[in-house]
Amino acid sequence: MDRPVLHIGNKRYSSWSLRAWLILRKAGIDFDEALVPLYTPQTRQAVSDLSPGGSVPALTTQHGTFWDSLAIAEWAAERVPGLWPEHEGRRALARAAVCRMHAGFTALRGQCAMDIARTPQAVALNADTRADIAAIQALWNDVGSVDGPWLFGRWSIADAFFTPVAVRFYTFDIPLHAGAQDYCDKLLADEDYAAWRSAALAETLPGPAG
Amino acid sequence: MDRPVLHIGNKRYSSWSLRAWLILRKAGIDFDEALVPLYTPQTRQAVSDLSPGGSVPALTTQHGTFWDSLAIAEWAAERVPGLWPEHEGRRALARAAVCRMHAGFTALRGQCAMDIARTPQAVALNADTRADIAAIQALWNDVGSVDGPWLFGRWSIADAFFTPVAVRFYTFDIPLHAGAQDYCDKLLADEDYAAWRSAALAETLPGPAG
Repeated sequence: MDRPVLHIGNKRYSSWSLRAWLILRKAGIDFDEALVPLYTPQTRQAVSDLSPGGSVPALTTQHGTFWDSLAIAEWAAERVPGLWPEHEGRRALARAAVCRMHAGFTALRGQCAMDIARTPQAVALNADTRADIAAIQALWNDVGSVDGPWLFGRWSIADAFFTPVAVRFYTFDIPLHAGAQDYCDKLLADEDYAAWRSAALAETLPGPAG
Repeated sequence: MDRPVLHIGNKRYSSWSLRAWLILRKAGIDFDEALVPLYTPQTRQAVSDLSPGGSVPALTTQHGTFWDSLAIAEWAAERVPGLWPEHEGRRALARAAVCRMHAGFTALRGQCAMDIARTPQAVALNADTRADIAAIQALWNDVGSVDGPWLFGRWSIADAFFTPVAVRFYTFDIPLHAGAQDYCDKLLADEDYAAWRSAALAETLPGPAG
């Protein structure tokens, strides 16, 4: 089959693109990348021409183009074993945690947008953001594996979904419980994330402020 | 194995519970229901005792309890063939549409909360809600099957995810394009939805207004 093409936004800012990209990398799927620059006058049209959902990431395969980080994750998981935990109960919890990340924590996402190049600096967090930060750490604690090294033991799609959260926690200098801090340190030290980050730091593209 | 238990909120109001319940019914999975009454002083504690995600629906199996309508959908799809479209490209689009519903259309969800017992009546819709209504119809049109009868031909998880949308469109008397109206009529005429609706109308439980 032709190599699939992953359409992504700017690596510096596009947290959902990072998730999909990490999953395809960890899956060992051979794919091409295509950048859709965000924050330009052409972005909206370019994305909606590409993706019936009007969003990136989107994946083009021999069967057409579809969008959404979680749909891409399930596509990869159908092809490559081991992207979800093997044990049924753990797999269900991993999906639940990913679904919650995919749909929620909107206060954190709104107040602490991902900017990989941001110099780490604290801001005054609003109450909803603080509640999200507490809830994420509680979630990791409740569902997390004691067997490490990743959230469900072996690396899984859940770790991809929480990598941009670790970026936010780091770049907004957010104090964490010890276990949560260790987990975030691990996510940020991952070699695939490091490759993404290097590319993000080298980008010279307009950002959200224009 | 023991019968799984689906923990649901009030049938009248809990749109996410309806989604999970429809999927298990259509899958032919034998399960018990357990109601967690919403909108009571005890609700928050009851739900968080039950579900590590602090939300219903949640499913208890021999492997423990997990939450989230989409995670429950994937659990069912692993057990029963045919809940997602068989064709790879259609399956990817169905998942993408479901993911978008799961995470989005928050203006519609906020302004037009599901209340199955509501007497159909129009309200002044705000601009974001109108945009959501247009986007949902465009999405159905873009990804929908020409082979009917359901969104992807055979009944799929996508139809479960859009059933509460059809309830909202009906009870808020929202004008739709002809194709979208036909699809909503079909969702609301479904026999499993009818069973849920009858139970919802018979409920005598506190609602969001207390």
